[in-house]
Amino acid sequence: MLEHITSLKNPKVTTWKSLKDRKGRKENGCFLVEGRKMVEEAIVSAFPVEAVLVDDARLGEFTLPAGVPAYSMPAHVLAAVCDTKTPQGIAAIVRMAEVELHGPRLVAMDGVQDPGNVGTIIRTADAAGFDGVILSAQCADVFSPKVLRATMGSVFRMGIRVTDDLPGVLSQMVKEGASVLSSQLDGEPFYQRSPLNERFVLVIGSEGNGVTDEVKAIATHKVKLPMRGGAESLNAAVAAGIMMYELTRDLDH
Amino acid sequence: MLEHITSLKNPKVTTWKSLKDRKGRKENGCFLVEGRKMVEEAIVSAFPVEAVLVDDARLGEFTLPAGVPAYSMPAHVLAAVCDTKTPQGIAAIVRMAEVELHGPRLVAMDGVQDPGNVGTIIRTADAAGFDGVILSAQCADVFSPKVLRATMGSVFRMGIRVTDDLPGVLSQMVKEGASVLSSQLDGEPFYQRSPLNERFVLVIGSEGNGVTDEVKAIATHKVKLPMRGGAESLNAAVAAGIMMYELTRDLDH
Repeated sequence: MLEHITSLKNPKVTTWKSLKDRKGRKENGCFLVEGRKMVEEAIVSAFPVEAVLVDDARLGEFTLPAGVPAYSMPAHVLAAVCDTKTPQGIAAIVRMAEVELHGPRLVAMDGVQDPGNVGTIIRTADAAGFDGVILSAQCADVFSPKVLRATMGSVFRMGIRVTDDLPGVLSQMVKEGASVLSSQLDGEPFYQRSPLNERFVLVIGSEGNGVTDEVKAIATHKVKLPMRGGAESLNAAVAAGIMMYELTRDLDH
Repeated sequence: MLEHITSLKNPKVTTWKSLKDRKGRKENGCFLVEGRKMVEEAIVSAFPVEAVLVDDARLGEFTLPAGVPAYSMPAHVLAAVCDTKTPQGIAAIVRMAEVELHGPRLVAMDGVQDPGNVGTIIRTADAAGFDGVILSAQCADVFSPKVLRATMGSVFRMGIRVTDDLPGVLSQMVKEGASVLSSQLDGEPFYQRSPLNERFVLVIGSEGNGVTDEVKAIATHKVKLPMRGGAESLNAAVAAGIMMYELTRDLDH
């Protein structure tokens, strides 16, 4: 199952390189993850791993998974395929899949643009004990290299849904009994919010414009963290983290 | 008070350009801030503003502060001095000053490396109602352009102390009755911590290595946020934000 690739011109290499862009990922239905940790997380995840790519010179460092096509190649070929300048010797091609949302605690991103914020929010949601993430199509692409890196592998442990109709998805959830919290600068004090239903969705808006009017109109709770000093707002990922941990505060008690 | 500068070779321009580097800032005792909001915040802050720099073509957009030397210059000269590619037409040269720490709620950074994290922690501390920030000398330079930008102006509203002896500073504070909380992966559950004294310092460690052993030995409380999913850790700025807001949770009640 181990094939050796020598040339940058190999058509497989061309395909893998195209996964750096959203267009290439969409056409191939795949994305690439780099490094031992991310590859291991992908293998045990609900996402199908299509291929493992290894640096020739570091082949002995890795146990290759059975049943998955593996390709070894010189370091410069692996580097051309990867997004980081110094890849960690291993990468994997992973098939995009909708991982079903289940469980009562969800976070939704309504146009969060910064890849670091999107990835960090997914990582924090995982740590806080949230069950899944909904992204509007206006968000940074969850399968881009920067977002994947910032998730630190949490992307493989969460339900993920990307939708071009976030208001539709949320209003359906409200009909089914969920609370929808919109984080907005003119919201009610977060710590004095009215009680939530067991199933809830916390919505984080874009860095520049916040939550869209369509989503605000659906929200059952409009909330704002206190701003006690002179700061006007918080970084989106920090605000999301503070609220997510507060909303799951009693889980361990 | 308005002097016109035409050439990139003007010695003032050379000095201002040097402020992009830590060495230049140290030699001149100054740093540069960009954009209307940051300049306005600097002017009303405890930091002395030494000069205001304005794009010739945009002079009419700004009200220049009385009593502060002002320099107008072509856009390309202002751009050479600034860190951002498209400066917002105005910048200021600000004298570094130790702004005294006062008040009971402090956050300390023990080697936080990422400029975005350092700036975001300062911004969040301001929003949460903290009074000041202590930085070990191993942290990203608080007066670097990236850190300043990430603070969104909060650097001008907080007490700031940079020290090459963080353990010494913290142990003195413990002697004076403060609690010192160290955030560490082997800490006690954060939400079940023992009560704090009125005066306290929350210590955030470096992204890679956490809080140093010297500081851990001084800490009166060793705490860790719950990690409920598969994530092993949180982004440093997110963890700091969650803890800071929890520690000030009852301020508005």
